[in-house]
Amino acid sequence: MDNLNVIPDIFWIKMKKMNCDEMLKEFEPLFNPRSVAVVGASRTPGKAGYVLVENLLNLGYRGSIYPINPNAKEILGLVAYRSVLEVPGTIDLAAVIVPAEMVPQVIQECVKKRIKYLVIISGGFGEAGKEGKRLQDEITQIAGQGRSRIIGPNIIGMISTTGNLFVTFAPFKQVRKGSVAVVAQTGAFCGAALHYLLSFQDFGLSKSVDLGNRCDLSENELLEYFLCDPDTRIIVLHIEGVKDGRTFLETAKRVSAKKPILVLKFGRTEVGSRAVASHTGSLAGSDSVYSAAFRQAGLLRVDDLDEIVHVSRALELLPLPNDNRVCIITFSGAAGAQAADLCIENGLTVPNLAGDTIAKIRGMSPPWMGISNPLDIWPAAERSGDVGKTYAEAINAALVDENVDLIIVLVNVSYTPVSQSPMPEELAEAVKTPLTKPVAICAIGYTWDVERYAEVLSKKMLPVYPTVKSCVQALSKLYQYGMYRKQT
Amino acid sequence: MDNLNVIPDIFWIKMKKMNCDEMLKEFEPLFNPRSVAVVGASRTPGKAGYVLVENLLNLGYRGSIYPINPNAKEILGLVAYRSVLEVPGTIDLAAVIVPAEMVPQVIQECVKKRIKYLVIISGGFGEAGKEGKRLQDEITQIAGQGRSRIIGPNIIGMISTTGNLFVTFAPFKQVRKGSVAVVAQTGAFCGAALHYLLSFQDFGLSKSVDLGNRCDLSENELLEYFLCDPDTRIIVLHIEGVKDGRTFLETAKRVSAKKPILVLKFGRTEVGSRAVASHTGSLAGSDSVYSAAFRQAGLLRVDDLDEIVHVSRALELLPLPNDNRVCIITFSGAAGAQAADLCIENGLTVPNLAGDTIAKIRGMSPPWMGISNPLDIWPAAERSGDVGKTYAEAINAALVDENVDLIIVLVNVSYTPVSQSPMPEELAEAVKTPLTKPVAICAIGYTWDVERYAEVLSKKMLPVYPTVKSCVQALSKLYQYGMYRKQT
Repeated sequence: MDNLNVIPDIFWIKMKKMNCDEMLKEFEPLFNPRSVAVVGASRTPGKAGYVLVENLLNLGYRGSIYPINPNAKEILGLVAYRSVLEVPGTIDLAAVIVPAEMVPQVIQECVKKRIKYLVIISGGFGEAGKEGKRLQDEITQIAGQGRSRIIGPNIIGMISTTGNLFVTFAPFKQVRKGSVAVVAQTGAFCGAALHYLLSFQDFGLSKSVDLGNRCDLSENELLEYFLCDPDTRIIVLHIEGVKDGRTFLETAKRVSAKKPILVLKFGRTEVGSRAVASHTGSLAGSDSVYSAAFRQAGLLRVDDLDEIVHVSRALELLPLPNDNRVCIITFSGAAGAQAADLCIENGLTVPNLAGDTIAKIRGMSPPWMGISNPLDIWPAAERSGDVGKTYAEAINAALVDENVDLIIVLVNVSYTPVSQSPMPEELAEAVKTPLTKPVAICAIGYTWDVERYAEVLSKKMLPVYPTVKSCVQALSKLYQYGMYRKQT
Repeated sequence: MDNLNVIPDIFWIKMKKMNCDEMLKEFEPLFNPRSVAVVGASRTPGKAGYVLVENLLNLGYRGSIYPINPNAKEILGLVAYRSVLEVPGTIDLAAVIVPAEMVPQVIQECVKKRIKYLVIISGGFGEAGKEGKRLQDEITQIAGQGRSRIIGPNIIGMISTTGNLFVTFAPFKQVRKGSVAVVAQTGAFCGAALHYLLSFQDFGLSKSVDLGNRCDLSENELLEYFLCDPDTRIIVLHIEGVKDGRTFLETAKRVSAKKPILVLKFGRTEVGSRAVASHTGSLAGSDSVYSAAFRQAGLLRVDDLDEIVHVSRALELLPLPNDNRVCIITFSGAAGAQAADLCIENGLTVPNLAGDTIAKIRGMSPPWMGISNPLDIWPAAERSGDVGKTYAEAINAALVDENVDLIIVLVNVSYTPVSQSPMPEELAEAVKTPLTKPVAICAIGYTWDVERYAEVLSKKMLPVYPTVKSCVQALSKLYQYGMYRKQT
């Protein structure tokens, strides 16, 4: 259970007055530190204090690393120190992973050493009963008085791909640099979620911060920072509750006018809400209030991790649509009907196509073929014998159709060498860039063929989705965000 | 556009009176033919008539293969014949892939040769205007008079993994034998869908039949057959419309009392419904009528392909639950709240646990920890230092809890060697089998770690899901089917 009442507001107030240059400078020692101490570094492989040092060493961090352990001379080939106070150089950031009762002493030493950022991974604080809460208050006070900032406690850590910096005991094997920043209010979930997200070729991370019990650094400050951060274009926020709703909404509103924010907030139902309350110690509040507030602030709510992958991909690659009218180009009437259903159910529309478009497609199609939206181009492709060219003509017709704001292209991808699939190169070639409207490809077939398509088309900045539902949901959120941006 | 009005009912009436032995015998030449002719076999690699022969040769079919092509002596090393009439032996099944206008002549020869099943892949019939419709009526009549059965026309073909039989021009690379039968009313979609489904390790196919324009063989007959087929335990049905709703529902009801039927039917919205109508030429009818009828017949409606993978996995492995009360065992409060939300939103409940269960968990947990459902066992695991054992005890407590009908186990899987993940072997070991209640694992982390978990746990017949949503949706359908089975 974290204690939301001890967040010191002094820093937050100070932050608000910073411009972007000041903000980037303020957070430079956190996201791009010149040196990192690991207090509680371990010599035992597999232990959290070992993996922390390992992650720093193996994943490309180039600054100085100081393992702190009173009983070791050397850890993973690095000189170990008894305390941060014995380290000769300056330290920008300390990761702390000693038992909770030892943390106040460690924080005191860190403050004395003028370490600006303290990433307190240790649990046993606000989430762990009365004594834990007392300890949390104590460390908050020590750090606050000493002008050090706490991230946590009770977290898996933080990542900055800018600095190849992995201050976490979660084992990371592969991290793609990218434009998505992740902020979470919970440890275990944040780690598992990052592992999941980073499995996808399409997903690239700029930074991630787990706030855990949030005794100091808050999501509001990070939103302000990510608004300024040139490496971040999309922000993913997992929240369980907010302390100061008004500030949060004011900040979120301002940030999402420039960069989209995806929100994962559980507790939509009463049972879920009780579950959130029981593990954070805070009342989650009525979900309908949150929903309305999120909408007002332009936040895009998602309800599972796969949606984060799909939606951020669309936001990353595509222009925002002017309105919600989708042209569905399909290889199959059934798949077209499926996409139409999902569009309608997700706030999009499937309009009649303009006369010009109909004339162009009619010119390609057999005479018995009715031309409508969804646009089944298979008969035309069969007639012409050139499926790639048929797709190209249909896409380009839709791109200039004044009734169309977004385009979904459904492709069956596993029919090569039987020439019923356009080659991904043909699709990439077909679409004129820079895109004037969002175009998303839904590729149905063997998942390895879908991946091959995605690889080729990502070079053309076209997102490829493996299911119709993921494709439509992503475009629906893109539309929602486009509408918010129009208002602001 | 297919023509639903020419389905000859004589066969159907005859079928209804068959018992299972007769039914299996009736369909033996279709699903396990001793010999197959390919009318329209081609020597040109990549052409549909070539891939057809290639699929028969390469995917393990052991009967005789007769390529029919008047201009070839040999195709892919097989002797080619000018007509089926020139083939010396008997032929059980003919695949036909010549231009539509040549099909009537071919059918006449097939009838003369007494070929029982004609898989007519060629398009250009009911879906292709007036002349196509006339041709379709003609072939239906010729086959009907000759006691041959038509599958199609306008299809991608059929598969029987029992007979290693791939009568299709869709290129197949990998097919896992399994217990799921797929029946579809549309060609292109069916092929792409099969490719997608067969990408998943968890998904195994018994048979698939694409009915296309359905001029003869219908979904009703196939439902009757799959009810009898010992290789099939789950039926997936894609339908666009049914001709005789009463017969369909009566059949579906009877079949789903023994084997679950998943239904994919698009046209839930008006726009989707219009799209279905325009490509099948039939009115799809009001979706609410279908929905109610499906529910009444115990059919499980799904709306995308990934759901077929997830739901069939649960149906394949798990016992049916007695009621809808879920115990959620979790490594993270946030993930637990997420699962609770999704349970409630999908018709499941998250009850209070029995006193015994609470006492068992309390005995393992630190004193400050509140014990509720979702059951966050991380503090207990941390305290014991043995995460595998902690999971095992929680799962086994839930298995005997009289308040619990289903169990969801949330695991973070990428924390090894940091021992925050139970090893999959530990989970497999923990769960007592045969299962008395359905237990599903939701594994969150790197997708390759999720696959490793799935591999180990599949040996214990436990399904592993990569997202909370897919896990809950699968259990929700399992519950829905359990309730139908209780009624019947």
